[in-house]
Amino acid sequence: MKNTIGLYGLGVMGASLAKNMLNKGERVALYNYTDDLTTQFMEQFPHEHADPYTDLSSFVQSLEKPRKIFLMVTAGDVTTSVIDSLFPLLDEGDIIMDGGNANFIDSNERYQTLREHGIHFIGVGVSGGEEGALHGPSLMPSGDKAAYAKVSPILEKIAAQVNGEPCCTYIGKEGAGHYVKMVHNGIEYADMQLITETYHFLRYVVHLSPDEIANIFEAWNETALNSYLLKITTHILRHKDEETGKPIVDIIMDRAGQKGTGKWTSMNALELGIPSTTISEAVFVRFLSALKKERMIAKDVLQGPIKEEIHQKETAIQYAKEALLFGRVIVYTQGFMQYKVASETYGWDLQLDHIAKVFRGGCIIQSDLLHPIRDAYRKNPTLTNLLLDDYFKNLVNDHQASMRAFLIEGIARGVSLPTFSAAMAFYDGYRAERSGAELIQAQRDYFGAHTYERVDREGVFHTKW
Amino acid sequence: MKNTIGLYGLGVMGASLAKNMLNKGERVALYNYTDDLTTQFMEQFPHEHADPYTDLSSFVQSLEKPRKIFLMVTAGDVTTSVIDSLFPLLDEGDIIMDGGNANFIDSNERYQTLREHGIHFIGVGVSGGEEGALHGPSLMPSGDKAAYAKVSPILEKIAAQVNGEPCCTYIGKEGAGHYVKMVHNGIEYADMQLITETYHFLRYVVHLSPDEIANIFEAWNETALNSYLLKITTHILRHKDEETGKPIVDIIMDRAGQKGTGKWTSMNALELGIPSTTISEAVFVRFLSALKKERMIAKDVLQGPIKEEIHQKETAIQYAKEALLFGRVIVYTQGFMQYKVASETYGWDLQLDHIAKVFRGGCIIQSDLLHPIRDAYRKNPTLTNLLLDDYFKNLVNDHQASMRAFLIEGIARGVSLPTFSAAMAFYDGYRAERSGAELIQAQRDYFGAHTYERVDREGVFHTKW
Repeated sequence: MKNTIGLYGLGVMGASLAKNMLNKGERVALYNYTDDLTTQFMEQFPHEHADPYTDLSSFVQSLEKPRKIFLMVTAGDVTTSVIDSLFPLLDEGDIIMDGGNANFIDSNERYQTLREHGIHFIGVGVSGGEEGALHGPSLMPSGDKAAYAKVSPILEKIAAQVNGEPCCTYIGKEGAGHYVKMVHNGIEYADMQLITETYHFLRYVVHLSPDEIANIFEAWNETALNSYLLKITTHILRHKDEETGKPIVDIIMDRAGQKGTGKWTSMNALELGIPSTTISEAVFVRFLSALKKERMIAKDVLQGPIKEEIHQKETAIQYAKEALLFGRVIVYTQGFMQYKVASETYGWDLQLDHIAKVFRGGCIIQSDLLHPIRDAYRKNPTLTNLLLDDYFKNLVNDHQASMRAFLIEGIARGVSLPTFSAAMAFYDGYRAERSGAELIQAQRDYFGAHTYERVDREGVFHTKW
Repeated sequence: MKNTIGLYGLGVMGASLAKNMLNKGERVALYNYTDDLTTQFMEQFPHEHADPYTDLSSFVQSLEKPRKIFLMVTAGDVTTSVIDSLFPLLDEGDIIMDGGNANFIDSNERYQTLREHGIHFIGVGVSGGEEGALHGPSLMPSGDKAAYAKVSPILEKIAAQVNGEPCCTYIGKEGAGHYVKMVHNGIEYADMQLITETYHFLRYVVHLSPDEIANIFEAWNETALNSYLLKITTHILRHKDEETGKPIVDIIMDRAGQKGTGKWTSMNALELGIPSTTISEAVFVRFLSALKKERMIAKDVLQGPIKEEIHQKETAIQYAKEALLFGRVIVYTQGFMQYKVASETYGWDLQLDHIAKVFRGGCIIQSDLLHPIRDAYRKNPTLTNLLLDDYFKNLVNDHQASMRAFLIEGIARGVSLPTFSAAMAFYDGYRAERSGAELIQAQRDYFGAHTYERVDREGVFHTKW
């Protein structure tokens, strides 16, 4: 009996996905570039429908047609060379799914190149980490719709399920799935940073302990703020370092790494002209954190305000809570602005309600907020902006005052709140009758004769200053 | 008698540079892709040493060897095709200077390609607009040092002069000159935006008229805030629309355009890992301003604070003044961080004091602040960061309290201050002992097993959460 799917790449994510597929009744051919991981897999998980290979050709031959091969290998050159090695072994109509964190531009190219040879390429954004991959990730597949129909029974089965619906749906043409995953990660950077800034505020302005903050976050997680990231943060804040007994957050070096998807999201926002400020601030602040040595000099020579105690602790905590929800709404607003313009620019016809649906479970950014986002776009698929939907309009109107109060407390006390600051400035800029750009345009016309438009009639004008 | 230099491209900038060269005693061959601009030039400026051509070969033949040809044409494909058309007409040792707003990556490639054929390519960043080009621009030339020596007498003569020194010096290898110009433009975006946010604050929070604000800016321009951009802003704010008699800033559409160099600067900062937040906010806010139609809907449905009158007008004005200087220092700090890392990454050996020197006159960002910046890097060429220099350390320490007060007034009253907010968050982030990245790293390790470092010993660690 032939295998129903092949899994190429048995690292942490690939092995978890393979187990997930086996648990859901698939017959899975297994292959890894080096045999060690294949052997290890079979030792740990000797499932009767797991079929390991050390020879690529036999791996491919073991699959029922059209063959379905899921790649879970390092994005970039490795993916290219894996596809090159598979290509001569495939027949017309076979399907390659790439679950790596590929750049969508690469996926667009792979889709086109393989298509010319009758091979279907499906770029699959995968989110959820090891746990998600094993028990149900969020999946964002893109490519030809007809090819997707052939793999959808498997993908929708292994995906997370929310209210009986899979967190997997056809996203759009070409590399749209990897694009949606990329911006997902951008949103993830910004949401992590908002939580981090909130933690910092509660820790160093309100002077609460990690355990106290964990209790607060746990309570918040029972409200509209419910999210996976907030939940794991409570676990982290309660976790004690085994060696020292101190809170683990006080032992971890405050220098953040990154793998590039947040950076790509910001670069794409710049390319498309989207004011995606919260995501870019969250990327930049990781760069800043990396300058640890400089910061250790700067902290002794650059001055902040004289720190006054906060007397109204409960009020400050309430501000922080409302600010976090406000900030998260702005992050999603900007992320979905990017999806909207990308869809128009690249001709992908992205369904924004489908994207929200896929994010509700399995992925890192899963949160209760995705339900009203989905509703907003389902009600009005051409909604101009999330902030103009009734639910979100009311939410930000209700929370903007607390957001201001929170920021003001933080700035007055010298705590850096880059992502919250960007969210506030975006909100006030978006609702400003006059943006200030009138002066920018005047300056540009003054020194560069770049011309300007008028408010009272059509045309392009230049002043002899 | 042969011509000493050829000027290809007689648009506004090219014609002004040609006049500048003629005024400084050069014999200038003139060429334009279409004859009309050449004819127009000779009618307007029939200088005895201006030598117009309608035939490219004759234009090239008229030059003394090694030939020096200055291109002032549209960046991108046009520049490529102009170089292609010139190439067969040149001899080994001839020099092409490109004064367009080229992307430095293109200039790197042109430098390499032409070099293989013995032709010298000098990328010349040019700033100063039409006026600067005519009377003395700021010039940022790069390429082979030996080739630069052959054109330096001309370039240093036509450049702006400050205290007897030309605002032109050899920048570095390859396309370094266009790179320096690119970041110059990024700084320009951010400084324009800071002035605009200050104007907006004074207009809509302090409720001053454009004329009153012009008077304030004029007074400020006699202080450490002295700059070209602040000077032209006073002229703009006093300018009345001829048709309506209203202040011109109230007639100009508040929707900003851009030509790409600010965007390139931000994309490069992301690429290199520089927390260049003020420049990117200034780019993003132009995108936001372009959403005029959406903003006109949003202004009626998204709420701000209840606006209270500012009673201490003089105090608010003083806050704004100190904030503007603080903000400008942060913009330069980030810009020079980018130069430093770019120099190391690309192996250009940029002299940061030379860059500051070149910016002191002729260019759009010329300001008094460039003198202490030059001094700081002259005193210590390997200075880690501008904020750690004594002068700037004292300056920001003196001004940080006013910066906070200014931001707090603006946020409390619903005025969008994206670039100031980014500057404040950067400052407080840079001087923070704990950055918050400890929690980011914990989250990344929790969901993605990305590992973390510890504060108390070397190594890479993973927690079984």
